[in-house]
Amino acid sequence: MKKSIAIDMDGVIADVDQHFLNLYHSEYGVLFTKDDIAGKTEETLFPEAGAARKFAFTPGFFLTAPVMEGAVEAVKKLMETYEVYIVSAAMEFPLSLTEKHEWLRLNFPFISWRNIVFCGDKSIINTDYMIDDHLKNLDNFKGKTLMFHSFHNVNYNHHQRVNNWDEVIKLLVEEA
Amino acid sequence: MKKSIAIDMDGVIADVDQHFLNLYHSEYGVLFTKDDIAGKTEETLFPEAGAARKFAFTPGFFLTAPVMEGAVEAVKKLMETYEVYIVSAAMEFPLSLTEKHEWLRLNFPFISWRNIVFCGDKSIINTDYMIDDHLKNLDNFKGKTLMFHSFHNVNYNHHQRVNNWDEVIKLLVEEA
Repeated sequence: MKKSIAIDMDGVIADVDQHFLNLYHSEYGVLFTKDDIAGKTEETLFPEAGAARKFAFTPGFFLTAPVMEGAVEAVKKLMETYEVYIVSAAMEFPLSLTEKHEWLRLNFPFISWRNIVFCGDKSIINTDYMIDDHLKNLDNFKGKTLMFHSFHNVNYNHHQRVNNWDEVIKLLVEEA
Repeated sequence: MKKSIAIDMDGVIADVDQHFLNLYHSEYGVLFTKDDIAGKTEETLFPEAGAARKFAFTPGFFLTAPVMEGAVEAVKKLMETYEVYIVSAAMEFPLSLTEKHEWLRLNFPFISWRNIVFCGDKSIINTDYMIDDHLKNLDNFKGKTLMFHSFHNVNYNHHQRVNNWDEVIKLLVEEA
């Protein structure tokens, strides 16, 4: 039986960090870089408190998120040897449910509906691996974890960090 | 730590069997009873092949499903001693995502978004118990199963059958 991987959406296959930066640039005229926001939280991401949360609650936010560099090819590659599930915490933002489903259909049409999970708390997810950027998801996971690099996790190192999809493929395919 | 239960929606807390019968009555003028359809499949449920599937694909179907008798009080009761998750296979009918979310908000407002899971295949769900009417979900589950009575499962007996929510409470609360 294939080993299984739970792959997060936001910050992992969807580049929401860059999406936040682009939206901030459009609305406030200031272009921050990913280096500028390293070590911040979602709350302190921008000078204006609540700006990031406001973006996330705007209709269309999840539908228009850019795909993370290398994610499409990497997920296809992983599917050759693993059972891949997309596991996204979508319940906090109910508007995101159909947007996330549509985003997956548009950008990852090769992923079956059988392998998509939208949940709140991820603690009941049982796969061999989890690739996620959030500690709250990784810390309670019983299998092997890969922490996908994001501005909010740069100061934590108790999970194996992966900086990009090339590093995921190296770890889970080439060196596995 | 509380033991956990994954509770299905359709056929378990939502009475889709009765919903099908009501819709068939409205459209075809014939009122079948639950006894009439015992032992049938979704495909052979009505004389007109595909009628049930047509109903399920009609916008509003999931939003207007009646609540299963006794489900609200029983789920509240279970939540006193168990961590309860609502786990629904919603991905096959993408339109159902927001309808199911709204149905839960209206009928089970006491369930947190953290405890809601919409998925395709349920094989990656890891809870202590699963209450479901479908063999495809129960057969691959690693914990203890309760098969909620439905027309399509009357001829299968390799899971503990529960005929209604009173029987669930007897098994999981009163005799546990």
